[in-house]
Amino acid sequence: MAAGARVIDFSGDFRFNRPEDYAEYGRRIGRTDAHAAPRLLAETLYGLVELKSPRWAQSPRIVGNPGCFAAAVLLGLAPAIAAGLVEPAGIICDCKTGVSGAGKKPNASFHYPARYDHMNAYKLAGHQHVVEIERELSALRGGPVTVTFTAQVAPMCRGILASLYGRLNPGVTAQTVIDAYREYHQNHPFVRIFDRSASVGTGHVRGSNACYLIVDADERNGLLRIISNIDNLMKGQAGNALQVMNQMFGLPQTAGLDRPAQYP
Amino acid sequence: MAAGARVIDFSGDFRFNRPEDYAEYGRRIGRTDAHAAPRLLAETLYGLVELKSPRWAQSPRIVGNPGCFAAAVLLGLAPAIAAGLVEPAGIICDCKTGVSGAGKKPNASFHYPARYDHMNAYKLAGHQHVVEIERELSALRGGPVTVTFTAQVAPMCRGILASLYGRLNPGVTAQTVIDAYREYHQNHPFVRIFDRSASVGTGHVRGSNACYLIVDADERNGLLRIISNIDNLMKGQAGNALQVMNQMFGLPQTAGLDRPAQYP
Amino acid sequence: MAAGARVIDFSGDFRFNRPEDYAEYGRRIGRTDAHAAPRLLAETLYGLVELKSPRWAQSPRIVGNPGCFAAAVLLGLAPAIAAGLVEPAGIICDCKTGVSGAGKKPNASFHYPARYDHMNAYKLAGHQHVVEIERELSALRGGPVTVTFTAQVAPMCRGILASLYGRLNPGVTAQTVIDAYREYHQNHPFVRIFDRSASVGTGHVRGSNACYLIVDADERNGLLRIISNIDNLMKGQAGNALQVMNQMFGLPQTAGLDRPAQYP
Amino acid sequence: MAAGARVIDFSGDFRFNRPEDYAEYGRRIGRTDAHAAPRLLAETLYGLVELKSPRWAQSPRIVGNPGCFAAAVLLGLAPAIAAGLVEPAGIICDCKTGVSGAGKKPNASFHYPARYDHMNAYKLAGHQHVVEIERELSALRGGPVTVTFTAQVAPMCRGILASLYGRLNPGVTAQTVIDAYREYHQNHPFVRIFDRSASVGTGHVRGSNACYLIVDADERNGLLRIISNIDNLMKGQAGNALQVMNQMFGLPQTAGLDRPAQYP
Repeated sequence: MAAGARVIDFSGDFRFNRPEDYAEYGRRIGRTDAHAAPRLLAETLYGLVELKSPRWAQSPRIVGNPGCFAAAVLLGLAPAIAAGLVEPAGIICDCKTGVSGAGKKPNASFHYPARYDHMNAYKLAGHQHVVEIERELSALRGGPVTVTFTAQVAPMCRGILASLYGRLNPGVTAQTVIDAYREYHQNHPFVRIFDRSASVGTGHVRGSNACYLIVDADERNGLLRIISNIDNLMKGQAGNALQVMNQMFGLPQTAGLDRPAQYP
Repeated sequence: MAAGARVIDFSGDFRFNRPEDYAEYGRRIGRTDAHAAPRLLAETLYGLVELKSPRWAQSPRIVGNPGCFAAAVLLGLAPAIAAGLVEPAGIICDCKTGVSGAGKKPNASFHYPARYDHMNAYKLAGHQHVVEIERELSALRGGPVTVTFTAQVAPMCRGILASLYGRLNPGVTAQTVIDAYREYHQNHPFVRIFDRSASVGTGHVRGSNACYLIVDADERNGLLRIISNIDNLMKGQAGNALQVMNQMFGLPQTAGLDRPAQYP
Repeated sequence: MAAGARVIDFSGDFRFNRPEDYAEYGRRIGRTDAHAAPRLLAETLYGLVELKSPRWAQSPRIVGNPGCFAAAVLLGLAPAIAAGLVEPAGIICDCKTGVSGAGKKPNASFHYPARYDHMNAYKLAGHQHVVEIERELSALRGGPVTVTFTAQVAPMCRGILASLYGRLNPGVTAQTVIDAYREYHQNHPFVRIFDRSASVGTGHVRGSNACYLIVDADERNGLLRIISNIDNLMKGQAGNALQVMNQMFGLPQTAGLDRPAQYP
Repeated sequence: MAAGARVIDFSGDFRFNRPEDYAEYGRRIGRTDAHAAPRLLAETLYGLVELKSPRWAQSPRIVGNPGCFAAAVLLGLAPAIAAGLVEPAGIICDCKTGVSGAGKKPNASFHYPARYDHMNAYKLAGHQHVVEIERELSALRGGPVTVTFTAQVAPMCRGILASLYGRLNPGVTAQTVIDAYREYHQNHPFVRIFDRSASVGTGHVRGSNACYLIVDADERNGLLRIISNIDNLMKGQAGNALQVMNQMFGLPQTAGLDRPAQYP
């Protein structure tokens, strides 16, 4: 950076502006070391372009690429929080991921025979991505937002399917909801809105940077229901980082990312 | 039946005592014909032994085997409803199933190339199992219980993982919850209770009649969280039917069902 | 074609110049109708550029895209046949394919629950691709070549792995073999030669038009052993057709096909 | 053993009577240590009951359980070798296994994302099971038998499908072949013979101790073709060991092994 390079950090170390958030993140992944470059934290920008931070206009030198679950959840909840559609406490994030979300390092849990035909919930005591999700949603709302987060692994390589539930505020209808989502994401080239009759899923975004959102409301029970589908290695990781680079350098967001999904 | 045979029905036709419930069920699976034997409906008993109906003692002649999702959900919610732990409206059932839950008839959605490495939500407008879930939970409570139900298919053959969320009533703690679950299921040979540190999943019940429940409460947000794992072809179908037969004929519930899971 | 269009046929109907070969092909896939356009058969060219037919220079108007197994086998055997390395009778083609090779139409055999964790041999009485394999190899040799062909399906979506075995002619060594393969394929941009220490497989060519050949000889038993890996939907189908179009129109063979494999 | 215990060894250390065979086996799996109990080698019996060794009658104290590939291959080739149907040199064993054949220890090659939708050949320079295969076939024939062995991994958990090819001796017809197989295996409770019209595969023996053999001859090319299907964890490992224990103690071979396959 001293030489003028600009950085997109993949590691999770620069998703936070405050050392205490980093410390909480570290605690959840079993790390206890202090941040190695705390002076850079104030400067780092959270790398999800669709959150529309005004700081993108200020030529950030360092951006923290989001966690894969966080990307899926934030794209699915930002419109509801920004428009004040739901109660801010206890939003439920029921998230399922493919195994590549856990990285390349082999372990007993992701050994093929232990993983095929098997699905399980994990880290119920507190997933590290909750820190950035609550921080970003709270910033969007201008007040605290809390989530209950359930991580699950399904026997697939790529894909996150996040089911998101919040209690609708009085007067919010299914139509209010879909209008708010279409408006929020209208100029976001990678986000596509569907209603509940759609049968889209993770396979339809595999290998692409797309996020497919099914936007729904259960008016009988007063609940918002969003199904957010991404490829965890693309919009949840490398594809998003490329989009961020495009944004940092004034290129079209889709440069190098116009590749369609590979299905089947 | 005229000859004295006793019946366990697999089809879904005898899960209801009231013709209007059957009609609603039929509507959700695209059938419009009236029930072919409505006189038998009053007599049929819902075939989930763990719901502890007093009618098991009355030698039922006809029992309706539950839907696979319904079995997973009811085993996971019955203790909370029976003990009055949660608000009865808007309980969230986020349910994932393996493909065998859709039966043996091939279709485009479950063709191998269309299904591998792909997960999706479906029937968001209203799944047929909601009818029996709400009916049974309401009976347990002695008042209306409503659920918001999300069906999802994961790329696996066997297994249901149901994530269940309800708002805890005032004063209910994590300890209250786990005590209530242990008590409710204490004599149920196929149900096993885990706390949130457990990493059990569907693979651990594959091929067995077991139900593994992870019982949890997010006290910060005042939410009950239950993870219910079954093999949809066993506790969700054939295994449960055998357990029902054992119950009907005064045999030990586990007769013929003491087979361990096949893992891997 | 009357209007000047040039055709690459996907169906299998124009892989043959002789009506009797088409009839044999049809017999093996259960069809008994005569060819609908027999006059075009004399004109059609078999669409595997790597077979180096002099007819590519004559601006063919119609090309028959090869069968997926045939593409994998011919790329793997052409160098040995062209160089006279093996006995021409009874070459063994032990071929495994992913399920997408069977097309999109669902059937009981490729229903997800019937196919996961299951591998089987099929069509042992005679696979239709044998017709074009023997015809092309015989043309290369200038004399009859026969193969024993075993088709197998593995629980994956994409990929063909063909194990090919022939009896080495006297004096042929492992070095003769690898030299002949490197020479034959030296200007073929999609074919890459490996020796037996390589651990490449179908996943490494998934989504690309590449063919990865492991070239080996078991000198102890006097056998040639070739492992040919392709993506059946790419080099085995659509990718190859695009390569053929490039060849027909004087474009670089790799135009539109420089996409790397998607792994994982 | 000093206390009278009888041993079935799972490790591979007692599949050989001669130290030099053990050394060759060790060399192929990267071990260089000498055998720890060479005096026991002379006494050990190879644990495949279907090979009909007269030594079973002599109450063996120690038996070496076969390698999983070796079990599949020997069940498929023993009848042909015993009856002298094929030339003894250069028999081809094209073998595919599920991932559980590699054990429980995680590694990069069997990490779920690296393994799904991917098939590859490996250990082409010489698989360790060749040693016991050639030794047993040579003993059956009373003269040297050699094989060319190709190991492959398919993206499944359980199952071995071995395609076996040998050159038919003069005068041997398809009928001779099937008669010899039926006769050889007639009293073997776990082996079932099919002709080439059968569409059986590894899924049909999953979880059982069965071996399903498709017996075929390509008379046009003078080749024997056998497709041998087993569950590598059952007939290829634990199930076979139980069968051996039954044999050692005079119990019916099927005691504890009458469980059907789990399919799907």
